[in-house]
Amino acid sequence: MTTDTDWCRDLPVVVTGGMGFIGSNLALRLEALGAQVTLIDKMLSQYGANPHNIADPIRVNRKGPPLQVIEADIGATAEIENAVAGAKVIFNIAGQTSHMDSMKDPLEDMRLNQESNLRFLDLIRRVNPTARVVFSSTRQFYGPPRYLPVDEAHPINPPDINGVHKYAAESYHMLYARIYGMRTTALRLTNVFGPRMRIRDAKQTFLGIWVRHAIEGTRFEVWGGDQMRDFSYVEDLVDALLATANSEESVGQVYNIGGCPAVSLLELAELLVRIAGTGSFERKVFPEERKKIDIGDYYCDDSPFRAATGWQPHIDLEEGLRRTIAYYRTNAEHYL
Amino acid sequence: MTTDTDWCRDLPVVVTGGMGFIGSNLALRLEALGAQVTLIDKMLSQYGANPHNIADPIRVNRKGPPLQVIEADIGATAEIENAVAGAKVIFNIAGQTSHMDSMKDPLEDMRLNQESNLRFLDLIRRVNPTARVVFSSTRQFYGPPRYLPVDEAHPINPPDINGVHKYAAESYHMLYARIYGMRTTALRLTNVFGPRMRIRDAKQTFLGIWVRHAIEGTRFEVWGGDQMRDFSYVEDLVDALLATANSEESVGQVYNIGGCPAVSLLELAELLVRIAGTGSFERKVFPEERKKIDIGDYYCDDSPFRAATGWQPHIDLEEGLRRTIAYYRTNAEHYL
Repeated sequence: MTTDTDWCRDLPVVVTGGMGFIGSNLALRLEALGAQVTLIDKMLSQYGANPHNIADPIRVNRKGPPLQVIEADIGATAEIENAVAGAKVIFNIAGQTSHMDSMKDPLEDMRLNQESNLRFLDLIRRVNPTARVVFSSTRQFYGPPRYLPVDEAHPINPPDINGVHKYAAESYHMLYARIYGMRTTALRLTNVFGPRMRIRDAKQTFLGIWVRHAIEGTRFEVWGGDQMRDFSYVEDLVDALLATANSEESVGQVYNIGGCPAVSLLELAELLVRIAGTGSFERKVFPEERKKIDIGDYYCDDSPFRAATGWQPHIDLEEGLRRTIAYYRTNAEHYL
Repeated sequence: MTTDTDWCRDLPVVVTGGMGFIGSNLALRLEALGAQVTLIDKMLSQYGANPHNIADPIRVNRKGPPLQVIEADIGATAEIENAVAGAKVIFNIAGQTSHMDSMKDPLEDMRLNQESNLRFLDLIRRVNPTARVVFSSTRQFYGPPRYLPVDEAHPINPPDINGVHKYAAESYHMLYARIYGMRTTALRLTNVFGPRMRIRDAKQTFLGIWVRHAIEGTRFEVWGGDQMRDFSYVEDLVDALLATANSEESVGQVYNIGGCPAVSLLELAELLVRIAGTGSFERKVFPEERKKIDIGDYYCDDSPFRAATGWQPHIDLEEGLRRTIAYYRTNAEHYL
């Protein structure tokens, strides 16, 4: 994407969840564009926080000031107040996405994914109500699609506890725009993949554990296989986050974000193994426990977002997987 | 309604929020039908809990054992575990409905309306997973209707913090049915009115403060006046709650509940003053602060609920208001 990014230079920016997968990719880009970046991260490694995410060689060539890191929950208002007060743009990316964990400990999921967001938004309202706020929401709470592609008017039907809490957190962002005039936007993400995602297990994305098996030359399981899904390569998503922050039209709005056209999980597995040249997979019947919270086919219509911001993805699924495999070939030790 | 109510005799029942408006009306009916009723109530008078609600003369004629009362939050699992474990039917009515309070203290609203429900449901799942559970939800989170009458497929769009939390609580009830096979039903209530509602102010329902002014012979304010709304007389709603508990078809479902056909707020005010023979009102322009969270016209389609349970309302708006005024003429001292 050839967006003009001069507006990022010297811009004070906060990225929550900045040590995690999406947050770190965004933070590194912002740093490269000369922004003054402060990361707020609770450092929960099980949900993807990883110091290596912001420590790899790409940073040797950085132009701007160093990244600042505040190790804190986004609900810990006293610890983060100064950073929040001074930001022009706040990317609120923090959260855990493990559906199974949310079912095992629903109260903890509520604290992490909902209550902290409420505290955080209320802090912004008090100390920096004109900041631009971009929230990473999820397509997950649409539940099993009633039609395809899914647009933003699709009914809400959270299939698990995580979905209930993510929807509540998104609702806060929209309410605070409507009632307090805050400048928030929510992006409903689909399957995001790429360098710096958690690959130790499937807690962040099933594609993580697939990549691990591919580079380790072992066999992974494809549950079902016919399910259609769309994917966003993380660099394209970073483009989308930046385009959002720079768009007045998107204030107070919710958008789907897709990217690569949908493929079946079977096609994805075949592509991954072919690109890696190592690893293999076997198809398995969907386990009963997961079936209850699975959503079947999903792909979205993201044309409203493209129309509002001019964004379009540039990395197709094959190229994205190639870059992902290449990253983990040389960085695997930090992610296992 | 001439439902067969023999199934209530000796039935161990829990009613949360049982000292409040709807809960107490339900509890008194259940008691009269011979059920063994345990109330769980946090006794928050500002949200309608009132000892007088279960102390008035109607109880002289009761047939069954006395009501048991546990003064506790529904999230205080240790204090309520025995009662929950022994119940066949659990009516989960507790909650606060003040939109303004939810905006002033959103975290407290989350505790009361969402977190406590999560703890409560999880307790039921652990100690009594086959209990019949009926949850009093609200039409409030539909937001401003996009079409009328509003059916259950209408998009969710919470207009305030209270709506976010009530929707999350309803979602928990539906999830626990789908995932754990629990026997929950949610009823989305509209404006419920009648004896035992809070009339000191408008925290529970605007109609409360109108009734107070009417019986005190003072003047109340009608904000706007053209808004169309539907109303449920509380005895009809009690019928609906009982019909739900006794219906297998409604397990795992969400239903709208209406009752009296919609009228404008102006018509309602005129009817109230005429029936009371005292009091007056003046129309006022809608205050800006409330306008942001008001929903405009609302009336629902409740035909799916009627078809599933056979329920229908029997008290029209005029008769309901007559009974309400009569109640407060003799009981006002306990509600002011």
